[in-house]
Amino acid sequence: MHLDLLHLAIEVAATLAFFTAGLLAAARKRLDVVGSFSVACLSAFGGGTMRDLLLDRRPFFWVDNADWLWGLMLLTLLAMRYLDHRHVSTTQRAIQWPDALGLGLFAASGTQIALAAGMPPLIAVLMGTMTAACGGVLRDIACAEVPTAFNDHQPYALCAFVGGWLVVLAEHWGWPPGPSLAAGAALAFGLRAWTLWRDLRLPEWRAGRR
Amino acid sequence: MHLDLLHLAIEVAATLAFFTAGLLAAARKRLDVVGSFSVACLSAFGGGTMRDLLLDRRPFFWVDNADWLWGLMLLTLLAMRYLDHRHVSTTQRAIQWPDALGLGLFAASGTQIALAAGMPPLIAVLMGTMTAACGGVLRDIACAEVPTAFNDHQPYALCAFVGGWLVVLAEHWGWPPGPSLAAGAALAFGLRAWTLWRDLRLPEWRAGRR
Amino acid sequence: MHLDLLHLAIEVAATLAFFTAGLLAAARKRLDVVGSFSVACLSAFGGGTMRDLLLDRRPFFWVDNADWLWGLMLLTLLAMRYLDHRHVSTTQRAIQWPDALGLGLFAASGTQIALAAGMPPLIAVLMGTMTAACGGVLRDIACAEVPTAFNDHQPYALCAFVGGWLVVLAEHWGWPPGPSLAAGAALAFGLRAWTLWRDLRLPEWRAGRR
Repeated sequence: MHLDLLHLAIEVAATLAFFTAGLLAAARKRLDVVGSFSVACLSAFGGGTMRDLLLDRRPFFWVDNADWLWGLMLLTLLAMRYLDHRHVSTTQRAIQWPDALGLGLFAASGTQIALAAGMPPLIAVLMGTMTAACGGVLRDIACAEVPTAFNDHQPYALCAFVGGWLVVLAEHWGWPPGPSLAAGAALAFGLRAWTLWRDLRLPEWRAGRR
Repeated sequence: MHLDLLHLAIEVAATLAFFTAGLLAAARKRLDVVGSFSVACLSAFGGGTMRDLLLDRRPFFWVDNADWLWGLMLLTLLAMRYLDHRHVSTTQRAIQWPDALGLGLFAASGTQIALAAGMPPLIAVLMGTMTAACGGVLRDIACAEVPTAFNDHQPYALCAFVGGWLVVLAEHWGWPPGPSLAAGAALAFGLRAWTLWRDLRLPEWRAGRR
Repeated sequence: MHLDLLHLAIEVAATLAFFTAGLLAAARKRLDVVGSFSVACLSAFGGGTMRDLLLDRRPFFWVDNADWLWGLMLLTLLAMRYLDHRHVSTTQRAIQWPDALGLGLFAASGTQIALAAGMPPLIAVLMGTMTAACGGVLRDIACAEVPTAFNDHQPYALCAFVGGWLVVLAEHWGWPPGPSLAAGAALAFGLRAWTLWRDLRLPEWRAGRR
């Protein structure tokens, strides 16, 4: 019961963080209200929707929770009206932690959903990774930019990937769904927190070096 | 009967307008014949295809009307061969009105289709809006540009959104499908015509202002 | 039996060529390991996945062959570590021929799959063309560039289109699947080889000329 509430609280906080990351990208590109809401929705729901399209699952999360969208529309209007230049970098920092929680939670739950749909382990883990990271990719593509997740050399999706494998292992060991989810999410979150703290970087192309 | 003919005539005119908008974007980017046809098809059929993918509906409109595609291929070739610099802005103005008709018709019919598929009202209206506006978004993304619908500050998708709600209301009041469709389409078209006439603009980001 | 082996060998070589083309695009944009693997996977599997999404077919090729992905991850790491500036253009030239084989094979097999799913001939041929050419389109869109297939004025997708029609004709004449596939693939490959050899170009927009 308490765990269910915690799960819901993390899910809400993470979705808001992903949505806000989309709003910040929209502000940088000076999109209008239609573009800002669209890009922020891609950021928040794009990963799970892509996973569900590939798995042929319906209904989508945002169809089942349509009422949330009114709140997100309001949030878009408020951000456009009140968000100031000074607030942008504060907001960017403030969403870092709920974003990392979302990375963990969505990677673990995406992996569980794909396993339940009969996917082989590697595909399930990749679908979990996609759930966590693909929203940001679609957000950046819709802004005509190279996705940050593809070229910022931060081990973002990699943390999701490792967390997903713990879910696979836990299910293999016969753990019930709750603890598997918690373990995978905690591992991915912990790795992400560690890479942020140590500012770890992915290797570069040799062919790209000067 | 007469209304069916009118419906078909608007649908054909609007599809041609959306396709032509794609051709003009392709001419600006100097795409070749493959790119021009592809981008114009995205422009014309992308919105409805995206809606049907999300709703898991088959067959797509263009599968049922495959023979149209021969005519659109011919149109692409003719445009590439004969469209002159001087004609581009004339064409742009000429398609404005059939485009606005298409906005109305596709918003209303998209909303009806989504309601019939059991979507909640807000989702149905958003799917109608997507039907009308998403083709242009996909066209621009395929041209590696920020979608016009996201940053031109014209209330294009908003008109579709409002028209969609009239369809929802009309069905709630028990109107038959024909009048609901006509009312929603007329409202979205009228709003679009009004915003074009008055050159209305959406608000900007406060954080974007200097 | 021998033909099956030949088929498999061409499929493997072509998939590697498409994947490598994605890696080269990633090296040009200096993507990190996550971006490079993602873009290369889009390049290799995007066309078939798009076709299967539109046809509502499951499972995807890469779900059934998940173990391949480990090899492709390894290939990504090796390319990032060892591919030198000097090797890039050699690699580009080296993949030209397996890429042309893949164009033929995927165009023909994509057309057959769409015909078997009940698509009308023109749609089936377009889906075959999409199978062959759409991976490169998605790769370039994910790199925020105008797709090469849309603006390099090489008759790449056109060769696939013509090869696809031979598959349609062969099935119409009652040929068994094997020879139909081989004939369509050979025609598309032959046309591509011819256009490469003669450096043939598609016509330009009149409105684009100065």
